[in-house]
Amino acid sequence: VPRTTRFEVDLRLAHAVCDAARASAEALGALVSVAVVDGGGHLVVFERMDGAEIAGPTLAVGKAFTAVAHRTATADLVTPTAPGGDLAGLPSAAGGRYVCFPGGLPLWDRSRVVGGIGVSGGTGAQDHEAALAGAAVFRRSAG
Amino acid sequence: VPRTTRFEVDLRLAHAVCDAARASAEALGALVSVAVVDGGGHLVVFERMDGAEIAGPTLAVGKAFTAVAHRTATADLVTPTAPGGDLAGLPSAAGGRYVCFPGGLPLWDRSRVVGGIGVSGGTGAQDHEAALAGAAVFRRSAG
Amino acid sequence: VPRTTRFEVDLRLAHAVCDAARASAEALGALVSVAVVDGGGHLVVFERMDGAEIAGPTLAVGKAFTAVAHRTATADLVTPTAPGGDLAGLPSAAGGRYVCFPGGLPLWDRSRVVGGIGVSGGTGAQDHEAALAGAAVFRRSAG
Amino acid sequence: VPRTTRFEVDLRLAHAVCDAARASAEALGALVSVAVVDGGGHLVVFERMDGAEIAGPTLAVGKAFTAVAHRTATADLVTPTAPGGDLAGLPSAAGGRYVCFPGGLPLWDRSRVVGGIGVSGGTGAQDHEAALAGAAVFRRSAG
Repeated sequence: VPRTTRFEVDLRLAHAVCDAARASAEALGALVSVAVVDGGGHLVVFERMDGAEIAGPTLAVGKAFTAVAHRTATADLVTPTAPGGDLAGLPSAAGGRYVCFPGGLPLWDRSRVVGGIGVSGGTGAQDHEAALAGAAVFRRSAG
Repeated sequence: VPRTTRFEVDLRLAHAVCDAARASAEALGALVSVAVVDGGGHLVVFERMDGAEIAGPTLAVGKAFTAVAHRTATADLVTPTAPGGDLAGLPSAAGGRYVCFPGGLPLWDRSRVVGGIGVSGGTGAQDHEAALAGAAVFRRSAG
Repeated sequence: VPRTTRFEVDLRLAHAVCDAARASAEALGALVSVAVVDGGGHLVVFERMDGAEIAGPTLAVGKAFTAVAHRTATADLVTPTAPGGDLAGLPSAAGGRYVCFPGGLPLWDRSRVVGGIGVSGGTGAQDHEAALAGAAVFRRSAG
Repeated sequence: VPRTTRFEVDLRLAHAVCDAARASAEALGALVSVAVVDGGGHLVVFERMDGAEIAGPTLAVGKAFTAVAHRTATADLVTPTAPGGDLAGLPSAAGGRYVCFPGGLPLWDRSRVVGGIGVSGGTGAQDHEAALAGAAVFRRSAG
């Protein structure tokens, strides 16, 4: 039978991931939104920092969804989605739900993607670094 | 840690569920489409019978997604989504992705919804019966 | 000068509102998603309880948005959006973003709507009651 | 009479095409989704391999649809849809339904397009090769 042991992105863990990402963004001086989604790309936790742009709900959620949907860091989609790349056109596929710049990371349980995090509001580098801080918390829990 | 044992809708099982639903529809004399989705509502297997209407890809997938999203048989959404019901307006929410007539069933692993089946093309009663036949195969495997 | 003192739905307060709604839902035995939005209808905080349906991210956010957009409890939109009502076509307007069943409430600062709360996952009555619990926390803070 | 003998993508043949594409992807070590559509671009068969990304249902179906809609391999749309190309805005046309990277092929019966195949989940080259394997089965049957 295909029963498997599986690590879940539950609400408690999603908050820990989100808190770590927000703390990282604060340390970087960035005002961001943070989204944590489950393995189906569905939102579990979202937070927008005071003063962060209203694009955050769309972009942070989109990055987290994209990271799950494509099983990759959204930072790694920048080059392939550039003109002439293998995935040029991806950002406008799927009704515009794919957000292909840095700040999204899948959350892995061994070879499975069981969730994702998306950060938006800072520079691409800041968003990516904050997402890494969130993913690190997940990895420690899943370990 | 939130690690859990979980029954999965893998490709092999999704085909078994789909085959059972299609066989049931054939026995009922209905030409249908059958969709099987995972716990995130994402498609795993789809089949449209020869001669079945082209609405099937939209409606069968929509019923399976709806059954997962609302953790209920879509047949049980007919009354609440009727005028004056608690969920009137649901069919036009979510960009029209919710399909609220009979033929969709969630697939349960104990208290979790781990997938869904949607059947479309026959009467509501036929679609529902064929979906039940598919879900029964899932239940025997999960048992 | 046209400056006004305005009560804001900041992150800290949004969490307090969300926590109160979730605690109310737990007391009612409902598994829900809770969304808190600002005066522009943009998400500030979202939480989905473990085991709550994946329709929550769409519906809870939609109810909060609708409550702000129309400056009314979504429960009060059920009758006017029924067939023959003044707002019969509303649920399908705005690209399906309006969700017109109970569980959404605007958050008022005197005569201004400065935010909204949306709860989804329980019955209409449970969702509405949990939203009231969240709004009460807001009102005490704003008072 | 304007009757023509027309080769159809029926369910049995669609499965054979899908099976060949999946076997090819497996041999290439890629985890993919495979979609087979009819001459109207409507889904006949879909399969997502265990562990394949959840973007597959959108992208594989989109590639198959695009190949039928434009009567061309989607790999041949990469250059014309690049900036300055004749079809530069195509990926964002049609509500984002066109997916213009490798992996989609039309299925020809002499001068008619009677179906399409779309593969997604591997690299562009892998998706294209797997689609070719599926189309070869179709061509042998149609021959």
